[in-house]
Amino acid sequence: MQVIVTGGAGFLGARLIQTLLEEEKRIEGETITRVTSIDLAPCPLDDPRVESWVGDVADKALIERALGDDTLAVCHLAAVVSSQAEADFELGMRVNLEATQALLDACRAHPRRLRFLFASSLAVFGPGLAQPVPEETGPQPRSSYGAQKAIGELLVNDYSRRGFIDGRVCRLPTIVARPGKPNQAASSFASSIIREPLAGQRAVCPVDPDLPLWLSSPRAVVGNLRHALQLDGDALGEWRTLNLPGITVTVTQLLDALERQAGAETRALVDFEPDAAIDKIVASWPGGLDIERPLSLGFQADVDVDTVIHAYREDYLNT
Amino acid sequence: MQVIVTGGAGFLGARLIQTLLEEEKRIEGETITRVTSIDLAPCPLDDPRVESWVGDVADKALIERALGDDTLAVCHLAAVVSSQAEADFELGMRVNLEATQALLDACRAHPRRLRFLFASSLAVFGPGLAQPVPEETGPQPRSSYGAQKAIGELLVNDYSRRGFIDGRVCRLPTIVARPGKPNQAASSFASSIIREPLAGQRAVCPVDPDLPLWLSSPRAVVGNLRHALQLDGDALGEWRTLNLPGITVTVTQLLDALERQAGAETRALVDFEPDAAIDKIVASWPGGLDIERPLSLGFQADVDVDTVIHAYREDYLNT
Repeated sequence: MQVIVTGGAGFLGARLIQTLLEEEKRIEGETITRVTSIDLAPCPLDDPRVESWVGDVADKALIERALGDDTLAVCHLAAVVSSQAEADFELGMRVNLEATQALLDACRAHPRRLRFLFASSLAVFGPGLAQPVPEETGPQPRSSYGAQKAIGELLVNDYSRRGFIDGRVCRLPTIVARPGKPNQAASSFASSIIREPLAGQRAVCPVDPDLPLWLSSPRAVVGNLRHALQLDGDALGEWRTLNLPGITVTVTQLLDALERQAGAETRALVDFEPDAAIDKIVASWPGGLDIERPLSLGFQADVDVDTVIHAYREDYLNT
Repeated sequence: MQVIVTGGAGFLGARLIQTLLEEEKRIEGETITRVTSIDLAPCPLDDPRVESWVGDVADKALIERALGDDTLAVCHLAAVVSSQAEADFELGMRVNLEATQALLDACRAHPRRLRFLFASSLAVFGPGLAQPVPEETGPQPRSSYGAQKAIGELLVNDYSRRGFIDGRVCRLPTIVARPGKPNQAASSFASSIIREPLAGQRAVCPVDPDLPLWLSSPRAVVGNLRHALQLDGDALGEWRTLNLPGITVTVTQLLDALERQAGAETRALVDFEPDAAIDKIVASWPGGLDIERPLSLGFQADVDVDTVIHAYREDYLNT
């Protein structure tokens, strides 16, 4: 039986695919034997069980063809990231909203009530909230990306309530450290200020060093996404939106940890150059969320900021 | 200068139009001299300043033609109501979501930054909330109507934040008592149990007599919608969604008031016949909301349940 992963060419999508194919993962008693990636580029994994459909996730005909009878679940990770959706409103609406709707409708038409994992974001929240943010707090996004994700959350919940799908919404923390190059997420700097110095390169921090971030390692996020997909829907209850666990870390604390592991010279490679456009988006996000319910459901947070950096070095630098 | 009112054939739309045309109401220093109603039926008002465009609010070409250069504002009241949107998912999505998107895009294309008043509903909220519901509480709708309204709220806010429109979202309480016939709103009974007995007819209450309702008279709601439209956007701040004031009244308290004004025989015309489908929707709505901010902005609540019934008798029965 197959699982569809949109955004399978991205680093998170590819890691999720890898995890799903490890050790005969099961959903509703059936084994995941293959994964179909739908993305603008092929999934980088070299595995015969992974099929890449290269195309636009908003292409309804493509989606309908991909959703074969042996589909168990759809993991919808493809998105136009925050700064890009802010710069190009139409593109964000098309990929983050219309494609999500098209995917949901294709799932609704499927004979099986498919599991549907939707990657949302802490970017749905606005500024000025109690910290940690209580679970029942509403989205007041200050970015079009956040608005589009919050709309997707409502759709996944309503489609689930009606029995069209068996949905799960995971609000992802800021992921540190992503491998590869900076992207157009407003939070991209949070990875850059770890990744680039560890590679001996300079990096720019565009926000205040005291800004608290809500962070998770790729390891923890991928483990939690996998858990969300395998969890029984009844355990989640009627409302299917979850704040994924993270840890609250200021930029200074993140750099302190970098210095502990790689020395003062490495930390000195980070320059502070305030950028109002990025700061306005990132500072509107909460620095901590109430995660009592997700922890009770078996979701996991990183132990501390040192393990976050250590995980990056182990996974991507082999150190 | 004109104002567009979608749903102008409905009783609330027609009353809002009447109010906007009274006493030279002004928006941004300009006088409202005419109103265009867009609805499936003509606006019932006999006033040469009211023009009725009969058609589908989801018809983009119609909307674009209606939005002439002299448009000051759009009041978007047209909707498929709760039980109907629950029974016909596609219809609800088309009218409550797609038409709202089409209207917002037409406003965005307009040379003026139009005021946009969106009628949302307490139906965006889910069950199990602290009472009164704190303002920052998020929508967890248990109806497709509530989900579609919550999505509209997010769109109006994001379009406002980007400067495409100058939006205001008003979450309406349950309106008691609407004149005319029962409609397909799950809350329709709340009007019926007042209106029908006052006309000497039997009525059915499908919910528990102890259920608290969040109520407003048509008078108060229309006054508040008018106020929301005329209020300076800066007073509202960045987040444009407001819980309109109401009063918390149980079904029993509502019937006690009916009895005080019209006697025990009138009250005895109400039969209790539980209806699980209606109860499931209505009982998921909160019975009270925190309205400190709207009250500080000049929005008004009814004095008490007796004035709510008295207003109905005065406005619709001339008693």
